[in-house]
Amino acid sequence: MRYELYYWPQIQGRGEFVRLSLEEGGADYVDVGNDESAGGVEAVQGWLEDAAAVHPPFAPPFLKAGATVVAQVANILQFLGPRLGLVGDNPDHALWTHQLELTITDIVAEAHDAHHPLGAGRYYEDQKAEAAKRAHEFREQRIPKYLGYFERVLANNPQGPEHLVGAQRSYVDLSLFQLVAGLRYAFPRAMKRIQKDVPKVVALADAVAARPRIAAYLESERRMPFSEDGIFRHYPELDG
Amino acid sequence: MRYELYYWPQIQGRGEFVRLSLEEGGADYVDVGNDESAGGVEAVQGWLEDAAAVHPPFAPPFLKAGATVVAQVANILQFLGPRLGLVGDNPDHALWTHQLELTITDIVAEAHDAHHPLGAGRYYEDQKAEAAKRAHEFREQRIPKYLGYFERVLANNPQGPEHLVGAQRSYVDLSLFQLVAGLRYAFPRAMKRIQKDVPKVVALADAVAARPRIAAYLESERRMPFSEDGIFRHYPELDG
Repeated sequence: MRYELYYWPQIQGRGEFVRLSLEEGGADYVDVGNDESAGGVEAVQGWLEDAAAVHPPFAPPFLKAGATVVAQVANILQFLGPRLGLVGDNPDHALWTHQLELTITDIVAEAHDAHHPLGAGRYYEDQKAEAAKRAHEFREQRIPKYLGYFERVLANNPQGPEHLVGAQRSYVDLSLFQLVAGLRYAFPRAMKRIQKDVPKVVALADAVAARPRIAAYLESERRMPFSEDGIFRHYPELDG
Repeated sequence: MRYELYYWPQIQGRGEFVRLSLEEGGADYVDVGNDESAGGVEAVQGWLEDAAAVHPPFAPPFLKAGATVVAQVANILQFLGPRLGLVGDNPDHALWTHQLELTITDIVAEAHDAHHPLGAGRYYEDQKAEAAKRAHEFREQRIPKYLGYFERVLANNPQGPEHLVGAQRSYVDLSLFQLVAGLRYAFPRAMKRIQKDVPKVVALADAVAARPRIAAYLESERRMPFSEDGIFRHYPELDG
């Protein structure tokens, strides 16, 4: 099965959560938006604008797997999990893994709102004062609350704190790595403080980065840099 | 199976999406937060604060079904769907239904941000000017974009525009009803305009309201009123 990932080119964005699972799962995939020979951004746009599509995505990323088209990061990962061996086969584990992934979806949306509290329709430069207020709450209250939650999940995992679910890595471990990487990029000063209180989260993120396939991916040209066009943006004035 | 729904008392909030499915599915359930004899708000709080919980919810609502505890609205509905006959048994339908539900999750979060753009930590009164800007974008761009998307999904459903997925009602039809009801409450003037462009969405919402079990529920005391403590809030100054 050759998977086709459709996402905007040149940014990690929400597509990166899918890329990490495809990479760790050793999947054969094409990153359509970044691959002109596969259609590039026009192909992404084409799918979004297809007025006759029976299962139209609301927004990228979406994944084509044969005749199936799936959108929404958490739903894509839930779909890929069993196919790529990235989730336990116990139904309780599948449900719990997805629940944790949806919690990551929530903080990712908040990370975006930290620099765009008035909406995505205005430039950051036109909402800097409001972003400073929203980012303050995000940094001081929301990041510690979310990462503290994942610390508790790790501490309470009966199979040990090396993984969020069960005794082996699942797609949500990869997503937690990406969340921590993005927060470290966007809020380096705040994260230096916050990370002291969540050692298990930090250890998991670092262990994911060291996994052979992930390490190779992070070294490759396929891993695009974080930037101020993505979700996690480093504006020093928003860091604590 | 007696289901236990845990959510804050006296508001519809995100819990309402779960209530509607429990009602339409004819489930035996207790709404713990609203039922002092079942433990009330202290029971909700107790679960959230249980430091030893193996599957702790990040936030309400969450549902107990025997030994299983599930959180995140879309995940709860995905769990309940097959149990209450509220989703097709074709795996493609399950995936697509969940994808649409996650898209509703996204607009619900934006509906909240329309009155709290600077974060939930400040009172609305302390962010009225910013809310006016965010609500303008939500009203003029986001609501039409989301409802226009669901209109297209209905128009393109090969089984007809009466349902979002397949030929029978699923949990996401119920959720679309609740979304439309909430938007009508919060933005009556804007919705009067917007609804003209999405007749199939309006017809679906009205058909859901007329389903016997839903109609009975909406008439009952179990249906709490919308209010300015919930997600959908009517502040006339935010309506267009």
